Amino acid sequence: LEQPFDELTLTKIPEPVINIVHRDEYDLPTDPKRNVAGVALSALMDAAEVKHGFEVEITKGIKPGSGIGSSAASACGVVVAANELIGGRFSKTELVGLAMEGEMVASGARHADNLAPCIFGGFTLVRSVEPLDIVSISFPPLFATILHPQIEIKTSEARNILPTEISLKKAVVNWSNLGSLVAALANGDHDLMARSLVDQIIEPVRKSLIPLFDEVKAAALEAGALGGGISGSGPAIFMLSRSRGDAEHVETAFTEVYRTSGIEFNTYVSPINASGVRVV
Amino acid sequence: LEQPFDELTLTKIPEPVINIVHRDEYDLPTDPKRNVAGVALSALMDAAEVKHGFEVEITKGIKPGSGIGSSAASACGVVVAANELIGGRFSKTELVGLAMEGEMVASGARHADNLAPCIFGGFTLVRSVEPLDIVSISFPPLFATILHPQIEIKTSEARNILPTEISLKKAVVNWSNLGSLVAALANGDHDLMARSLVDQIIEPVRKSLIPLFDEVKAAALEAGALGGGISGSGPAIFMLSRSRGDAEHVETAFTEVYRTSGIEFNTYVSPINASGVRVV
Repeated sequence: LEQPFDELTLTKIPEPVINIVHRDEYDLPTDPKRNVAGVALSALMDAAEVKHGFEVEITKGIKPGSGIGSSAASACGVVVAANELIGGRFSKTELVGLAMEGEMVASGARHADNLAPCIFGGFTLVRSVEPLDIVSISFPPLFATILHPQIEIKTSEARNILPTEISLKKAVVNWSNLGSLVAALANGDHDLMARSLVDQIIEPVRKSLIPLFDEVKAAALEAGALGGGISGSGPAIFMLSRSRGDAEHVETAFTEVYRTSGIEFNTYVSPINASGVRVV
Repeated sequence: LEQPFDELTLTKIPEPVINIVHRDEYDLPTDPKRNVAGVALSALMDAAEVKHGFEVEITKGIKPGSGIGSSAASACGVVVAANELIGGRFSKTELVGLAMEGEMVASGARHADNLAPCIFGGFTLVRSVEPLDIVSISFPPLFATILHPQIEIKTSEARNILPTEISLKKAVVNWSNLGSLVAALANGDHDLMARSLVDQIIEPVRKSLIPLFDEVKAAALEAGALGGGISGSGPAIFMLSRSRGDAEHVETAFTEVYRTSGIEFNTYVSPINASGVRVV
């Protein structure tokens, strides 16, 4: 996404330490061993064998626990910035690997689902984590609309609710849809994308954790969205549209449904960010 | 594949009947209700409401029961030829739907996995059978090497041996590989294709029905193949290579491994056919 985004400022300091300052309303730990950005930065400093330290100022624009990759944003921001300051010696894939150390602090699992698009930009597919194999997928103009209900879903709960076994029949349906989603992105075929954005395995289980999920999705499709689903492990819901106009209609639809819920929420409209973390 | 192939000759006849003649060594039924081509042609005649009949001469070049789509070849050939003779009123997707009636006679299931590439050419993904949704995937130059061991695998056995439930973990690995295979084809990335041609679910189970499968695959990879696996439900094995030279090395490797087996076998080398059934 182009927005919301985190902003990080890194400054080299002579002492070999990491000092973290948070300039936002979230009560995140500033101990570098418990802070996502701190752990990622520490992994980079070890790998690069740097002798100095960094001061890190973080202004989070992405609310933690949203499901749209808040921890990944900080982990990626810090490694991209530090890499810039030490002469750019790491590749994008290597930076994802380093940021993954930070992501582990937040999610407890080594996964690059949020890190890869944050560093590469656009749509990415993580073929493998060990070794890291990241595939960039070309895509047509697309706009995302995000609904973030202000409820907490514990990642552990979102994970434990998933089945450990699924039917081969359903797996085949998901394979078909995933393969055709990749083809739709690569060919810029919006109609095929709309038919392919269907998940019969994870979404039917996890949506129970998100109030009004079905109503929100139906209203968004009615308003012109191509399709969408749960963002990460939730509670955010994303929908994709072919134009900003459609994406804004979807935002209106989100708002109309959710203001009946009694739950506080935020909405965002953003084009797909093609370039990933930006150094300014 | 460009080869092997079936050859069909259709002639309009005044009587509203289907007469089938087989000009090959296989003892296939010529009763149009039991013959794959006859059933497919009959479905087309019903759909088009034609008042005349057809004489169908079939010379099969693809051995039945190989796993490389022998029945699909006849079903597709007959509907494409008949469509040509009645003025081309059916679309490619509609022709796949009609050919599927014939394929049912051979496999007992409504599936378009072999029909779609036979009619569309190249690589296709069948997103859905009901309704039919066929996705063409662009691809770089590729050559297939086929090993067809002359053993019989009953489709029912190949199907019953499959698990009905699989672990979500393995399903995710296959999703990753399938998605990146589609991206590799679309981007013409041979190296990514090699890494993605991995199936941890069906192949480990079905390969037990094919003598020397592991040895054949290892020898083919050693000879320069990008990857491959079981063709359809077997017994044929396919491997893909980036050049005809590599594909011929793979054929030599196939032959060296399989002549120790005591099983009769055929091998084929062919570029990927981009155009599907050809009217001559």
